[in-house]
Parts: sequence; structure tokens; C-alpha cells
Amino acid sequence: MVERLRARGLVGEMAAEFAGTFILILFGVGVVAQVAAAEIGDHDSIAWAWGIGVTLGVYVSARISGGHINPAVTVALAVFRDFPWRKVAPYALAQTAGAFVAALLVRWNYSEVLAAADPGHTIATQGVFSTLPGNGVLAVSDLGALRDQIIGTAILLFLVVAITDLRNINPPPYLAPVVVGLVVVGIGMAWGTNAGYAINPARDFGPRLASWLTGYGTAWLDQHGHPYFWVPIVGPLIGGVLGVALYRVLVGRFLPVTEPPEPGRVPTSAQLEKA
Amino acid sequence: MVERLRARGLVGEMAAEFAGTFILILFGVGVVAQVAAAEIGDHDSIAWAWGIGVTLGVYVSARISGGHINPAVTVALAVFRDFPWRKVAPYALAQTAGAFVAALLVRWNYSEVLAAADPGHTIATQGVFSTLPGNGVLAVSDLGALRDQIIGTAILLFLVVAITDLRNINPPPYLAPVVVGLVVVGIGMAWGTNAGYAINPARDFGPRLASWLTGYGTAWLDQHGHPYFWVPIVGPLIGGVLGVALYRVLVGRFLPVTEPPEPGRVPTSAQLEKA
Amino acid sequence: MVERLRARGLVGEMAAEFAGTFILILFGVGVVAQVAAAEIGDHDSIAWAWGIGVTLGVYVSARISGGHINPAVTVALAVFRDFPWRKVAPYALAQTAGAFVAALLVRWNYSEVLAAADPGHTIATQGVFSTLPGNGVLAVSDLGALRDQIIGTAILLFLVVAITDLRNINPPPYLAPVVVGLVVVGIGMAWGTNAGYAINPARDFGPRLASWLTGYGTAWLDQHGHPYFWVPIVGPLIGGVLGVALYRVLVGRFLPVTEPPEPGRVPTSAQLEKA
Amino acid sequence: MVERLRARGLVGEMAAEFAGTFILILFGVGVVAQVAAAEIGDHDSIAWAWGIGVTLGVYVSARISGGHINPAVTVALAVFRDFPWRKVAPYALAQTAGAFVAALLVRWNYSEVLAAADPGHTIATQGVFSTLPGNGVLAVSDLGALRDQIIGTAILLFLVVAITDLRNINPPPYLAPVVVGLVVVGIGMAWGTNAGYAINPARDFGPRLASWLTGYGTAWLDQHGHPYFWVPIVGPLIGGVLGVALYRVLVGRFLPVTEPPEPGRVPTSAQLEKA
Repeated sequence: MVERLRARGLVGEMAAEFAGTFILILFGVGVVAQVAAAEIGDHDSIAWAWGIGVTLGVYVSARISGGHINPAVTVALAVFRDFPWRKVAPYALAQTAGAFVAALLVRWNYSEVLAAADPGHTIATQGVFSTLPGNGVLAVSDLGALRDQIIGTAILLFLVVAITDLRNINPPPYLAPVVVGLVVVGIGMAWGTNAGYAINPARDFGPRLASWLTGYGTAWLDQHGHPYFWVPIVGPLIGGVLGVALYRVLVGRFLPVTEPPEPGRVPTSAQLEKA
Repeated sequence: MVERLRARGLVGEMAAEFAGTFILILFGVGVVAQVAAAEIGDHDSIAWAWGIGVTLGVYVSARISGGHINPAVTVALAVFRDFPWRKVAPYALAQTAGAFVAALLVRWNYSEVLAAADPGHTIATQGVFSTLPGNGVLAVSDLGALRDQIIGTAILLFLVVAITDLRNINPPPYLAPVVVGLVVVGIGMAWGTNAGYAINPARDFGPRLASWLTGYGTAWLDQHGHPYFWVPIVGPLIGGVLGVALYRVLVGRFLPVTEPPEPGRVPTSAQLEKA
Repeated sequence: MVERLRARGLVGEMAAEFAGTFILILFGVGVVAQVAAAEIGDHDSIAWAWGIGVTLGVYVSARISGGHINPAVTVALAVFRDFPWRKVAPYALAQTAGAFVAALLVRWNYSEVLAAADPGHTIATQGVFSTLPGNGVLAVSDLGALRDQIIGTAILLFLVVAITDLRNINPPPYLAPVVVGLVVVGIGMAWGTNAGYAINPARDFGPRLASWLTGYGTAWLDQHGHPYFWVPIVGPLIGGVLGVALYRVLVGRFLPVTEPPEPGRVPTSAQLEKA
Repeated sequence: MVERLRARGLVGEMAAEFAGTFILILFGVGVVAQVAAAEIGDHDSIAWAWGIGVTLGVYVSARISGGHINPAVTVALAVFRDFPWRKVAPYALAQTAGAFVAALLVRWNYSEVLAAADPGHTIATQGVFSTLPGNGVLAVSDLGALRDQIIGTAILLFLVVAITDLRNINPPPYLAPVVVGLVVVGIGMAWGTNAGYAINPARDFGPRLASWLTGYGTAWLDQHGHPYFWVPIVGPLIGGVLGVALYRVLVGRFLPVTEPPEPGRVPTSAQLEKA
């Protein structure tokens, strides 16, 4: 089976990453549209639906591509886990494209409601699609938002690596997507103040582009008119690498070097990759 | 055992689909009654309780009938997964009947509270039982609601097929109902604005009929007096097929053709069906 | 091991039922005290914490006593599943005692807060401990509350039996307490309007007695001064039996008569009981 | 492998306890900052994110150190489960250090938002970091808070021991962190009124020190100016021991004395410790 999966190669992996990130954004941008434009639900809905989007996006894609659905994950695994560097750009492209198309679909479906809530398609509802410092309301500088994105993504990757480390007490592959979803629920509840917890360059850039192409002229800027789109790209890429490094220092190096998978455990995509 | 299950045949399958959809609606219409008429809870309660209803309805029925509890699921599986076409109408009938009886039970139990909140049984509480464009409040056209129902049900079926695809990293049968419930929680939080996320013709038509027979004279209409009942029937049937097709294009065709079930995994009803 | 468990006999089972119901009420009555008297949290907290209480109460007691923690469960299993009738009264006594002691502990811990919110210990905070028709606010008659308790407990038992039926696609014993907890979360969100979803005579009577002994003079009455304590006892006992009967008619009789447990599945307490 | 783990010894265990408590506090203090200072989310967010923090902190550390992340757990296991007393102080130190560093990180990341909400860094936002009687608002005495902390931690340890007791119907190691997280969600919803549910001396003392060093001059005091920091230290240490004792009396002694692990179950850290 490993042979077959390999034969399909990069096209299948890109399709899976596209699909996984597509699902993520259908829920993630969808819930912000519902709460911000239609006032149905609250911030708890936002945190839960983003987490559910991650869980389901990973279920969709994990067997074929490893279920990264986030360039910060892809880059961190390339740095630390032998994920091939030549696949990094294709993965990131597929992830961003999936996020872009999903955001267009949300944009289309919520067009009446967005037009009613914010006829000028201003910065008031721009946050439905892409993040803003202090969520567009609080006084947080762009550098404060950058710091926040570095820390938030470091937390994400620290935990993703812990949860999928076969040497740790990690959940089996069929359960891991749920636990990874919980990580994102928690980050949304605890680390969403300063920069709207993008923690994923594709999640932010794809929908930002979609909103810019469909009437949001200020999409690249923050509420003070400064270019902002780079923050949720640069921050997560740095933070992800820091998070994995910290896991290795604090936990990983104290775990045994190799361990056979427990009987009855399905191999993960990471194992298939190396097999 | 497969023989025994087959011997019981269609009557047992219809009873299971009746029971599963009955449970779904006891929770789903029940929670909307509690929130809308008694103001106990909020939209998060609605999203969670619908998801819990799906989880429990699938647990109840999955072994005997496959746990469709939704004609859009039944039709999509007939189109793509060899579910026999001759069973589609009986399944849909059983599902709608289960939803109808459950809605009558909610109607009876909440009769005092509904009479107090809306003595005339007008469109103000009609939404307890069946969906409305823009939830009866927002300016969404019937065609906008149709589009929404197509997309929402496509998301549902894309994910149901992904989660139950034995070639994917899917949860075992005893856990899959929980993950499918999470899908519906997420759809409720992110795709419930335009049309109240029926995403299930039986869920909408059965309770609509129940409310019409018990004093809701406008049950077939939307808030503008237009016939609306067809939208949450036609939309989901189209959307479900589109969702499975999209899964096949983006994910399914990149998975290996056949794979034996992992040791220790219980066979699913789908496998039993084909055995 | 079965021998050892049997040797401990009824005393151990009563201790386990005491402990399980004790845990249930520490969370259940605790959360209502926190929300109603201190206004920390909302109705969603109530629904979730009751469900968590059920999950944890079952984990604590399931191996020794089967984890009933509810006389309506005990009676229904005696009627339908060969649970010995001679144990019904001891189980119910232990359950009620556990609920009583837990409610005393909540009463003690929340004494300052209850005194501040309701110095006279009137019917305004009586609902922290025991249920009222329409939650003490809505216009629901005692008979309406009785109907509600019959239906609500029927839903509970229908699902408890479905989830623990080894012939169905049921979760393994180590996961079933979580799913049973979800049932109670859903009932709280959808069936809590008319009578506060006692669905458990011990849950209601034990705390009612505790509140009456500690200053709530009206504990046996509803807001109109009528005796009410019998409703959440009689309703659940009737409803539980109806729920199991309905499961048998709609689902149980279509499942195969016997089936060996899947390899790797731990036997349930019910199996141990019969072994 | 056991040999390797032992070879790493206490340094690895302290690193794991540091990491697990660090993760716990990143979510726990983070969510209170987000809700209290930025008003994003509500008390339900607080309860869920603390529970998620516990779940993830245990996943991170359980294989190496047992995943205590709480001195009250460490002390109770030393009293009752042969955890070596010589490791108690190092564990408690590592836990407190992890909580301290995580709180500094939250303090830094939320510095703008905290400065905007409470420029003087007064007792108004001190509760972001450490607990107060009655959450700084309700009239609860320090002794009432002590009583509450004893009971709350007793509930925690009673359930932690029940969930990890191999003789009980306990979840497997890869699932137990989720159930332990649910315990803390429930305690937050039901036992958070009187003293903010520290139930963990490291969770309270580490962040208290961090806030005192960074501008919160009243960090050691309650809202009446009395020394308070000792309550969430002494109460949990007493309560934890009481909780395990109560579990042993009500449940543990009725379970069989020894039982081999079920096939397919991964050994827990506790087993590795003794092997």
C-alpha cells in the first residue's frame, strides 16, 4: 500500500492538503461570518468551530499527505522531522489555494448578510476573512501581534509534535485529529486576543486574497492603514520552528530513541512516509 | 450474523432509520423549542444538541441500517456506494416518519410553553419545527437559502464519506458517530445563518408536517408568504451528491483501492451490507 | 476475578452506587449553585457539568455495580435485563444516600453565597437542590412536568440501553461513560424546560431532603404551594421502563440474538454479573 | 525501554513536569487574561480552556514523569501509591517553575491589554494570575475559601485515582488525559465560586510570583488586604490526600487486588515506574 500511495505522489498530496485546508476554512471563516455579520453565536462558537475545522481537515487529509493543512507545520517538519524540503512550496501552495477557494465560497454564501451588516465592505467585517491586531478593536501594535503569533504557533507546534510523537503516550491516529482540534480550541480561547490566532499563514493569506478580490479594498492593511498581511505569515513560520525546538529540549530528548508501535496501532502517515 | 441481519430485512432497517431519526429530532427540535420558546440556553446549545442528536441517532441505528437518518445521505450512497436504489424510498419514508413522530412529541411536551410564548402559533415560533430563510429574521432570499442548503449538505456528505472511508485514517465504528456529530456541531456554528442548516429533508419535512397539523397554519411558507418547504428538500438532495463527488475527486481517488480492515476493528454496517 | 467481585457482594455494590451518585451530585448541584446563586456561568455550563457528572459517576462505579447511579436505571434493568429485584431497593437507597450527602456538601460549601443571594432560603434558590415545574418560572402544571419527566427519562433509558447493547455498534466500556454523559448534556439542552430534567429519583429526592434539613422549609412544594416531590420520582420510574420497551420494539428485536464480544474488548459489568 | 527512561532519571522527569505545567498555565492563565482583560469569551471559555490545558499538559508529560503537573497530585501519590518521597520536592519545584515561566509569557504577551484594562495593575486584574476568595467579588472568607479548596481538590484526586486505577473500567492511557481534562472542566463549572478553583499549589503560586515581580504589588493579598497565598497551597495539599483516602474507602477496597492489563493496552507511566 505504501507503494501505491507513493506512486500517486505529490499530486495526491497536494490535493489532500488542498481538501484539508478547504474544510478547515469552510468552518473557520464560516463561523466568523455567522457570528460577526449575523450575530448568531458568540466567541465560544468561534473557538469550537475552528477546532472542529482542524479536526475534520486533518481526518480528510492525514492518510495521504500527513494532514499538515498549515505551512507553519510543513516548514517545522521539514526543519526537524525529515519532511522533504522540495515538497514545502507545493504543500504551502496547495494549502493556500484550499483556503482561498473555501473563503470565496463563504464570501458567496454570506454575500447578502455581509452586505446588510457592512454595505461598504470595510474593515468592520474584513476580520471575517483575515486577522487584525487586537481583532481590530484593542490597542495592540503590529509588533505585539507578531510576538503573539510567534508564541501562539509555538504552542501549536509544541503540542502537535507531542501528540504525534510515537514515543510519547499519544492518541492513536484515528483519535489524534480530535486532540489536535482541542489544541486549537484552547488557543482560540486563551491566545486569540492580540492577533485573532491565525497561527497558520495559509489560513490568513488565502482568505485575505479572497476578500480583497471581492470588494474588501483594505484587506492588506490593519485598522491604522499599515500593511499587516505579513504578520500572520512571518510570525507562524518562526513560531512553529521554535515550538518544535522547545519540545525537543524539554521533552523529546528524554524519551527513548526508538520504539516499535504498539500492537493494534495503525501506522501514521509519518511512518508511511518514512517506510 | 450477517445472515440473521439480512433475514430481518427491510422492516428492521426501516425501524432502525425511524428510531435513529426519531432520536435526532427529539434533541434537535427539542433544543430549539427550549431556546426559542423558553429562552433557556443560546445558539451554542442549539449547535451542540443537534450534534449530540446526530451522534446518538447514528449509534442507535448504525448496526442495522447503516445509520443514515437523512435522505440526502441515503440518496448519495445510492449514487456512489452501491446502496440499493429500491431501498431509497423506504428509508426516506422511515426517516421522515421518525422525524414526524418525534416532532409531535416535542409539540405536545412544549405545548404550554409555546402557547405562552406565541399564543397564535405564528411564524414567530414556527422555526422551532422547520427552517426559514435567514432564520426568519435576516434578509436572505429563497434562492440564497437553496444555495446555502446545497453547500451545507455538500460539506456534510464530503465529511461523512471521509470519516467512514476505510482506506482513510478514519475513526473506528464505535467512535465514528461522535465525529459525525462534531461535523453537525460545526455546520450549525458556521453554516446556520442563511437557512437554519436543515441539511436533511426528513429533519425539515417531518416536523413541518407535525407543526402544520397542530396549529401552525403557515408552516409551508416563509416569512414573506412564499412556499418554502421545497428548499430544504431539494437543496440537500443536490448538495449531498455534490459533496461525495468532490470527495472522490480531491481525496478518494488518491487512496489505495482496497485495504483489509485493521485487526481489532469491528466491521461497519456498510461492510456487512456488502458481505 | 469475577469470584472476588462477587465475594465482596452487595456492600461493595452499594458503596460504588453511593460513590457514583455522590460524584454526580457534587457536579450537578454544584453547577446550579454556581450559576443560580453566584451568576458564574450560564445554562450551557449547567448542561455540560451535569453530563460530566454522569460520565465521572459512571467511571467511578461501573466496574463494581454497573454504574446505574439512578433508580430509574436500576428498575428498568430489573424489568428487562435480569438485574435481580432483591437488589433494587438497596441500590436505590445507596444512590439516594450518595446524592443526599453530596448535596449537604454543596450546601455547606455554598452557604455564604446562598445566604447572600437568598437570605430567607426561599423557593428562589430551592431550585439549586431540587427541581420545580417550569424551573419555578414558566407556567407548567405538575401534570405537565410529570409528562415531561416520563418522556425525558424514556429518552435516557432508550439511549443507555442502545449504547450498552453489545449487539449494537456500541462504544467499548472505557468510552461508554463519555457517551452516556453526552446523552445527559443533550437532555439538559433540549428537555430541561418543563421540569428541570431530574430524570433520576435519587438526584432529586436526596438533595431535596438535604435542603429541607438545612433551612429550605418549602422544599417539598412547588411555587404554587402544591406537593411536588413525587413528580421527579414517579415520572422517571415510569419513563425508564417505557424507554427500554420502546428500544426493544424499534431496535433490539432486529439485532442478532447473541454475539461474542469483539477481541480486545473488555467485558462490561453486565457481563461480569452474568458470568 | 524502562531502563532507558530510568537512566535519564530525575532530570527528565523534572523537565517533563516543567513542560506539562508550562502548557497548563499557558492555556489557563491565558484564557483568564483573554476573558477578564479583553472581554473575549465568558466563564464557559475559562472552564473549557483550563480543562484543555490539563489534557494537553498530561499528554506532554505522562510518559516520562507520570503527568502530575500538580503538587497536590504528587503528594497524594507519595502518600498512597508508593511514589518516592524523595522526588516530591523536585517535582513540586519543577511544576511551580513551569507555571511561573508560563505566567511570565502570558504577562508579556498581554501587557498592552492588561495596561489598557487596569493601568495600575491592581487587584482588579490580579485574578488573571492567581486566585482570590469569592473571585475577588463575592463575600467569601479566607476560611471558606480554604474549605472550598480542600473539597475541590479532594474531588479532583478522587477522580484522578479512579480514572487511572487499572482495576476499574478506566480509559486507556492515550485517552485518560481527555477524561482528566473533563474533570477539571466540571470542577471549573461547579466548584469555581468560592476560590477560583486553584486546586493546584503550583498553578497558583507560580503565576502569583510572576505577577508580583511584574507590577502587581498586592499579589500576596486578598481583596481585604489579608495574606491569602497560603490558602491555595494548604487547601489542595490536604484535599488531595482526603480525596484518595475517600476513593479507597468507597471504591478501591472493593476492586480485585491485582489484575493483568488487558491485551492491547499500553502500560501507564505508573506501571513503568514500578517495573
